[in-house]
Amino acid sequence: MKHIIGHKNPDTDTICSALVYQDFLTQKGISAKAFALGPLNKETKFVFEKFGVPEPEQITELPKGTEIILLDHNEEGQSIDNIKDLDIVEIIDHHKVKIETDKPISIYIEPLGSSCSIIAKKYLGLGDLSDVKLSKINASLLIAGIISDTLFFRSPTTTQTDKDLVEKLNEIAEIEDLEKFSLEMFNAKSDLGDMPIEEIIKLDYKIFEFAGNKYGIGVMETTNKDYGLNRKDEITEKLKEIKTKDGLKAVFFSIVDILNEASYTLTSGNEEAELFTKIFGAVEKEGSLFVDKLVSTKKQIVPRFQENLMQN
Amino acid sequence: MKHIIGHKNPDTDTICSALVYQDFLTQKGISAKAFALGPLNKETKFVFEKFGVPEPEQITELPKGTEIILLDHNEEGQSIDNIKDLDIVEIIDHHKVKIETDKPISIYIEPLGSSCSIIAKKYLGLGDLSDVKLSKINASLLIAGIISDTLFFRSPTTTQTDKDLVEKLNEIAEIEDLEKFSLEMFNAKSDLGDMPIEEIIKLDYKIFEFAGNKYGIGVMETTNKDYGLNRKDEITEKLKEIKTKDGLKAVFFSIVDILNEASYTLTSGNEEAELFTKIFGAVEKEGSLFVDKLVSTKKQIVPRFQENLMQN
Repeated sequence: MKHIIGHKNPDTDTICSALVYQDFLTQKGISAKAFALGPLNKETKFVFEKFGVPEPEQITELPKGTEIILLDHNEEGQSIDNIKDLDIVEIIDHHKVKIETDKPISIYIEPLGSSCSIIAKKYLGLGDLSDVKLSKINASLLIAGIISDTLFFRSPTTTQTDKDLVEKLNEIAEIEDLEKFSLEMFNAKSDLGDMPIEEIIKLDYKIFEFAGNKYGIGVMETTNKDYGLNRKDEITEKLKEIKTKDGLKAVFFSIVDILNEASYTLTSGNEEAELFTKIFGAVEKEGSLFVDKLVSTKKQIVPRFQENLMQN
Repeated sequence: MKHIIGHKNPDTDTICSALVYQDFLTQKGISAKAFALGPLNKETKFVFEKFGVPEPEQITELPKGTEIILLDHNEEGQSIDNIKDLDIVEIIDHHKVKIETDKPISIYIEPLGSSCSIIAKKYLGLGDLSDVKLSKINASLLIAGIISDTLFFRSPTTTQTDKDLVEKLNEIAEIEDLEKFSLEMFNAKSDLGDMPIEEIIKLDYKIFEFAGNKYGIGVMETTNKDYGLNRKDEITEKLKEIKTKDGLKAVFFSIVDILNEASYTLTSGNEEAELFTKIFGAVEKEGSLFVDKLVSTKKQIVPRFQENLMQN
């Protein structure tokens, strides 16, 4: 059986794309099952409760030699702990890639707004697969993944294809008010309750290496930026702690105001604050580094860091 | 305009897949043109003459910043000389991969027998693209590429999909006797005339790195193994010369008898002959290292070298 796994710190797109791809392969007669590499976030839980879908099983390791399909990621550091023991047979993703294999495998990467968009194309785009049916629930999950990753088309990663796919998918899903649905999702994601600071920072957090140095980059997408800004002192302290503990050059944490399309960034020190200000043209606002229209880690934050830090 | 380029030492699959993909993109309203990174081999020339297709323009460099699509390869060393100055926007291939990008791009890799199979699927598999028409000539070129890379289904790289695609393609191409056509292709490839020894060795030749050492691996696919074996002394001398000149650990040259599905390998020295014998269980025959059923560089020769040399 093929094990379909999304990335660590699972988000709505990684979970929904993996789960619906399980259905796609099963319908094609291929034995496959989707797993999560950790607990679902509140947005994803909201989506699963709304459509009455059971959550995928959580795992952290798999037996040696297990066949795995990587969904919504392609780099080992973002994947299952013992990936080196496993047999990667397929990769489906929409991020930049760093892949090396010792044999030809299936790889499908497309620069769309979400991995759910790619899975949706598999159902909707292929005329010779009329035996593969997309259920109302699976169409709904795919819409949720696309809305989540594109911030309902606000992110600069959004393509026309993503919009077209949501329109087509909603002919099946029949979600009455997509705008309302997206707000419910974002509000669910924004409600952090009494979540510990480190968990907030690591909600959507990855370590990147530029020119030999490691940088921690975390993002919190929210409809209420004050959930983050009200705790900025605690967050800044924790960023400093993470920097030391993990041997990083710097840690950045951006609070992304989804609805107003802007971000408020906190950093692990003065030097990194200066660096961030220089690279992104940030201005000080509410005790943080404000940048208008900066909302996407993938398309804006990481590439600009890479571009600037690689040159030095 | 997007420049579609196959790999160096172009073969029938790399040229035909690039050329037909040009047609596919053009029909989709995307400006694109296919180029060759060197002269066509005799098999490819035979195919182009048979179907009255003009040869693609040859290039070795492109202006800085040009958008390129890599067809039938993904590693920089196998690509256009100044690839580091160019903007790779898409990769279509069926080989093992080693890819690193700084942004999300389109990547479609599928472990089929040829890159032409992947292009064929783009025409035949997509119901929503009924506006994209596959011409009789383009169907013929795709069949030629599949036959060439799979040795007309003899190679262990062949999949059921490759066979199904040729059947579907031939409904359009209407090639009367595919077996006869494949023999004509292989005979054209086998006719080396008075080609200099180094050119013969480099007909299908790549440098691979295993555990820090570089190895040259060349293959000559032929319907008449004596074209190679009759010149084995000259070839062996040249392999030794290439080894020294290019600073390689070893050079291997396999004469693959396509019709009888076996190979006769010459090497650049005794030590490498022993290594080859150990890895492949070769036996001495006609002054070369004979291995039955060893025909595929990609699926057999390179992976077994890698497996054995990486451990040491």
